[in-house]
Amino acid sequence: MNLQAILDDIVATLRPELGRSGKVADYIPALARVPADQFGIALRTADGQEVASGDSATPFSIQSVSKLFSLTLGVRALDEKLWERIGREPSGNPFNSLVQLEREQGVPRNPFINAGAIAVADRLLSVGDGLDDLLAFLRSLTGETITVDEEVAASEAATGFRNVALANFMKSFGKIDNDIPAVLDVYFRQCAIRMDCRQLARAAAFLCRDGVHPLQRTEVLGVRQARRINALMLTCGTYDAAGEFAFRIGLPCKSGVGGAIVAVVPDELTVCVWSPALDATGNSVLGMRALELFVARTGMSVF
Amino acid sequence: MNLQAILDDIVATLRPELGRSGKVADYIPALARVPADQFGIALRTADGQEVASGDSATPFSIQSVSKLFSLTLGVRALDEKLWERIGREPSGNPFNSLVQLEREQGVPRNPFINAGAIAVADRLLSVGDGLDDLLAFLRSLTGETITVDEEVAASEAATGFRNVALANFMKSFGKIDNDIPAVLDVYFRQCAIRMDCRQLARAAAFLCRDGVHPLQRTEVLGVRQARRINALMLTCGTYDAAGEFAFRIGLPCKSGVGGAIVAVVPDELTVCVWSPALDATGNSVLGMRALELFVARTGMSVF
Amino acid sequence: MNLQAILDDIVATLRPELGRSGKVADYIPALARVPADQFGIALRTADGQEVASGDSATPFSIQSVSKLFSLTLGVRALDEKLWERIGREPSGNPFNSLVQLEREQGVPRNPFINAGAIAVADRLLSVGDGLDDLLAFLRSLTGETITVDEEVAASEAATGFRNVALANFMKSFGKIDNDIPAVLDVYFRQCAIRMDCRQLARAAAFLCRDGVHPLQRTEVLGVRQARRINALMLTCGTYDAAGEFAFRIGLPCKSGVGGAIVAVVPDELTVCVWSPALDATGNSVLGMRALELFVARTGMSVF
Amino acid sequence: MNLQAILDDIVATLRPELGRSGKVADYIPALARVPADQFGIALRTADGQEVASGDSATPFSIQSVSKLFSLTLGVRALDEKLWERIGREPSGNPFNSLVQLEREQGVPRNPFINAGAIAVADRLLSVGDGLDDLLAFLRSLTGETITVDEEVAASEAATGFRNVALANFMKSFGKIDNDIPAVLDVYFRQCAIRMDCRQLARAAAFLCRDGVHPLQRTEVLGVRQARRINALMLTCGTYDAAGEFAFRIGLPCKSGVGGAIVAVVPDELTVCVWSPALDATGNSVLGMRALELFVARTGMSVF
Repeated sequence: MNLQAILDDIVATLRPELGRSGKVADYIPALARVPADQFGIALRTADGQEVASGDSATPFSIQSVSKLFSLTLGVRALDEKLWERIGREPSGNPFNSLVQLEREQGVPRNPFINAGAIAVADRLLSVGDGLDDLLAFLRSLTGETITVDEEVAASEAATGFRNVALANFMKSFGKIDNDIPAVLDVYFRQCAIRMDCRQLARAAAFLCRDGVHPLQRTEVLGVRQARRINALMLTCGTYDAAGEFAFRIGLPCKSGVGGAIVAVVPDELTVCVWSPALDATGNSVLGMRALELFVARTGMSVF
Repeated sequence: MNLQAILDDIVATLRPELGRSGKVADYIPALARVPADQFGIALRTADGQEVASGDSATPFSIQSVSKLFSLTLGVRALDEKLWERIGREPSGNPFNSLVQLEREQGVPRNPFINAGAIAVADRLLSVGDGLDDLLAFLRSLTGETITVDEEVAASEAATGFRNVALANFMKSFGKIDNDIPAVLDVYFRQCAIRMDCRQLARAAAFLCRDGVHPLQRTEVLGVRQARRINALMLTCGTYDAAGEFAFRIGLPCKSGVGGAIVAVVPDELTVCVWSPALDATGNSVLGMRALELFVARTGMSVF
Repeated sequence: MNLQAILDDIVATLRPELGRSGKVADYIPALARVPADQFGIALRTADGQEVASGDSATPFSIQSVSKLFSLTLGVRALDEKLWERIGREPSGNPFNSLVQLEREQGVPRNPFINAGAIAVADRLLSVGDGLDDLLAFLRSLTGETITVDEEVAASEAATGFRNVALANFMKSFGKIDNDIPAVLDVYFRQCAIRMDCRQLARAAAFLCRDGVHPLQRTEVLGVRQARRINALMLTCGTYDAAGEFAFRIGLPCKSGVGGAIVAVVPDELTVCVWSPALDATGNSVLGMRALELFVARTGMSVF
Repeated sequence: MNLQAILDDIVATLRPELGRSGKVADYIPALARVPADQFGIALRTADGQEVASGDSATPFSIQSVSKLFSLTLGVRALDEKLWERIGREPSGNPFNSLVQLEREQGVPRNPFINAGAIAVADRLLSVGDGLDDLLAFLRSLTGETITVDEEVAASEAATGFRNVALANFMKSFGKIDNDIPAVLDVYFRQCAIRMDCRQLARAAAFLCRDGVHPLQRTEVLGVRQARRINALMLTCGTYDAAGEFAFRIGLPCKSGVGGAIVAVVPDELTVCVWSPALDATGNSVLGMRALELFVARTGMSVF
C-alpha cells in the first residue's frame, strides 16, 4: 500500500474545501486567529515508518488531545486505582455532563470529558509533578522538545469559568484532593501544549504497538492497558460524536478543538489529521472527512 | 487454536460459579422461573466451523438480542433513511432515556435502547410485514425453524407499560407512523423469540463475514453496513455498560435480559454466551465473565 | 366597592386588545376554531352576590380548570390518603415532568400537572364513578346542568399520546390501579366539560367560603382542606407560571388552555376570567391582564 | 387574642420534643456544635407590639434568611431591572438547580436558591457596597448592632466549593459582573450574620406593613414590592418544601439551615421561630411544628 500516495491524494481531494465549512474555535483570541484554510496529515506505522502530507509540520494547540496522554500517565501510575475516581462510560450528551456529575456524586463519566480530565490532572498531582511529567512524557515519546503556548494557557485560565465550576463541584463531593488552582493550572496548560501532526502521530504510536514505546523497546503501557485506552477513545474520544465516529470511521479517535484528531489502527499505524475549522460537535470538519477517506482507501477499520 | 478446548475450559472454569451471583430477570413469570444455574457457549468461525460447549442447545428468550436482527432488516430495507428517525449515539445512562427522548423530540438515541427498537419496529411495519419478516430472516440465517414463545410475548404485552409509554411519547412527537398496538405487537413478540447459543452464533455470523450470509454466498448487508452494525454494537449494544464492555472485552456485543450475549470478532468468528443471572446493568454475569476469559485466551480484540 | 363598575371597566380597557396577542390552543380542531376575540369575566362574593361583564355567559372548554374540581372530590373522598400517590410541590418546569416522574418513582409532583390529574382520576374511579361523580358535583355546585363536549373529548383521546404515555409510565411504577383506558376516559372527558365564567365563579365559590357550599349550608370541604386547595392553586395552579402569577397577581388561581382562569380571594369572592388566546406558558393573555387590573383596582391580594 | 399565652403554650408544647428529631447542620464545625435542644419564638405586630417566648434572645447564624434582606436591598436599588438576571419560579427540586441553571443559560430560577442569592450579591456589589449595605440595612431595621460571625464566614468560604461552582458557572454564561471572590465574600459573610428571633421578627416587620419601616414612617419598599417579596417567600422561600409549607402552614416563610424560619401574616404580624435541628429538606423540624401550632391557634392564614 502506497501510504504517501494515499495521504497526498487526501490532501488534494480536500484542498478545494479548505476554509469552506465549519468554524475555528473562537472562545479565546489566540485560537480564533488561527487561519481556517490549513490541513495536515501524518501517520506512523507500527514498525516506525513516518509519512506526511499537507501542513503536517505546522504546530497547533493540541487541546483535548492532551487528555489522551495525561490519561496514559495516570494509568501508568495508578492502573486500576485510577478508576475509583473516574468512570468509563460515554457521557450521552453535553447537557448531561453536570447532571451526571451530580447523580454520580462527583465521579465524571469518563476521562475524556473536561471533568474527567480535571480529575486525572488531580491524580497526576498526587503521584508526581503534574504538567512537568506530562511534558517529559511527550518529549520522550517524540524525541523532540514540546512546550506550552503560555498565551493560550493564560487565556484558558482567564475565561475557563465553567472548568472552575466543574473542579469546585467535584471538590464539593470530596473527589478532588489537591488545591483547585494547582489542578486547574495543570489542566489549562496541558490544553495549551503545541505540537504538529507528525509529532502527535509519533507520540500516540504506542497505541498501535500494544503499548510499546515508539522509539524504544520499553513498555509505555501493558497490552491490556493499551487496548483499553483504544476502547475508551472509540467510545468516548470525540465529544458527543463518538457514536458517529464509530459508525462512519470505525477507529479509536481522540479529537481536540484546536482541530486535531488522532486515530489508531491497532497493529498497523497511528494517524493524525489537523484542520482548524470545527463542526457543531467540536470536531474538525475536514479532519473527519480525511479519516473517512483514509479508511475508505485503505480498508482499515477495527470492525 | 483449539477452539473446542478453549470453550470447554471456559465452561469448566465457570461451572463452580453457576447460580452464585446475579439475578434472573423476574419482571415476568416465564423468565423468573428459568433456572439460574445454566451456562452455554457456541461460536461459528467466518469459514463455517461451529464449536459449542455447556448448555449450548438449550433455547432461551433472546430478548434484546432480537434488536440486532430487526436493525439489520431495517438497514437492508432503508439504509441511510432509517437514521432519520433514530440516532447513533450512546445513551449515557438509563435515567436519560426519557429525558433525551424529550430533548431530541422523540428521536431515540440509538436502535438498541427500547425506544429505538420500537422505532425500528415501526419502520419494519411501514416497509413490510414486521414480525413475519423477522422470523423469516432468522430462519434463513440459521436454516432452522425459529418461533415466538407466546406465553412470554403475552406477559411482555401485559406488563410492558413503560414500553407503551415510550411508544406513545414518540407518537406524540409524530415519530411513529403505524398504530401503536401493531408496533408494540412486533416489539413484544420479537423479544419473546426463542433460540439457543448455537443458533444465535450462526445467525449473527454475517457480522464477522463483512455482511455475507452464513450459509449462502448472498449478501445480507454491504461491507460498510455490516461494519457499522458492529460499531453500533460496540458503542451501544450492552445497555448502560457499553463503555465497560469495550474496556474489559473489546468486542462488539449485543446482550439481552434473557441472559444471552452475542459478540463479534470481525473476520474471525461470532460467539454467543448464555447464562440467565444478570448483573445490575441487565447483562449476564457469567456471560460477561466468559467473554473476558475468551478474549484473554484467544487474544482476540478489535483494539 | 362597585364591583359591576370595576368589571365593566376591565372589559372596556381590554376590548381594544381582543385577539391582538397570544394564540388560541390549536392541538385539536374544536379548540382551534374558537374565535380569539372574546373576553368574559364573572365573580361571586362570599355572601352570594354575582356580577359579570363581557362574554360571561359564553360556554367554553374548561380544560385544566377541571383539575380543581376533581382534586376537590378526591380530597373529600380520601383526605390525607390521596397524598400517598400525589405530591404537593411545584413542578419546576415542563421539561421536568417526565424526569421527576421517573426520579420520584411514578408519583407526580402535584395534582395540577397532567400526570397528577390522571392519578386523581384513577383515585376517583377506585372510590366511585369517576366522571359521573364529577358532573354531579359540578351540577350541585352550580345548580345548573353541566355537560361534556363529546367532540372535544374524542379529539383529546385521539391525539393525547403524551397523556397515554404518562399514564402508562405511572402504571409501570405500580401507581395506577385501574385500567388505563378507563382512567384516561375520565381524564379526557373532564377536560372537555363546557361551562361559562359565571358557572365557574359559582362552582369555585366554596373556596372563598372556607369550604362551605355556594348554594347550601353544607360543607364541601373542611376549613383546612379548602385553605390547602387554595395553597395548591397558588403554588401549582398555573402551569409553569405559578411564581409569576403569585408575583404579579397574588391570588390562588387555576387556569386552563381553553382560556379560563379561576381566582380566589379568601373570605371575599371568586372570580373567573376567560379569553381564548394563550401565552407561551398556556395561560390566557387577557385573563392574566384582567386579573392584574382586578387586583390593582380592588387592592385584593393574599399578601 | 393573647399572643403571649399562645407563644408560651407553643413553647410548653414543644419543650418535651427538643432535640428528639432532626439533625443540626454539620457541614461546618461552628454550626455542628450548636446544641439541638433550643427553641425560641418571637413576633412583632404591625402596630409594633413585640412578644417572645423560649430562647428568643439567643443569637444564631441566620444563614439563608439573609437572602430575604439582600433581595429587599436589591429590589430597592434596581426594582424591575433586578429580574433581568434572576427568575421568579420555584425550582422544582434540588437536583434541578444545576440543570436549570444550564438550561436557562445561567439565570437562576429564583433569588432564594443559592445561585439566585449569589446573583443578588453580584447586583449589590454593582450598585453599592455589598455586605456593608446589608449590615447597615439590618441595623436600621432593628435599631441594634448586627454583626457577622467571622468564624462561620471563614468556614463557609473554606468549604463552599459548590457555591464557588455555581458562581463560576453563572460567570461562564456572562451573568456575573463582579469578580467572583468579591461576590462570594458577600455571600459567605451574609450567611454568617448572627441575630436572634426577636431581631429577625422586627427586621422583617416591613413585610406585614405593606413595606413601611418597622421603627420609622419611611418606606422600605412600595406596597406592590412588599407583596411581591411575600409572594416569593410563599412560592420559593423554604428550599424544596415550599409546596408543603403552603399546604400545611399557609404563610410566606423564609428559612435557613441555622434553624430559623421567618413567617409573615400580611397586615397582622411577622413571627420568627428558631430551633437548630433540621429535617431532610433543610428546614427546622420544631420551627415548622411551631408555625403549624401558631396558625392552628390563631386561625391566621393567607388562604
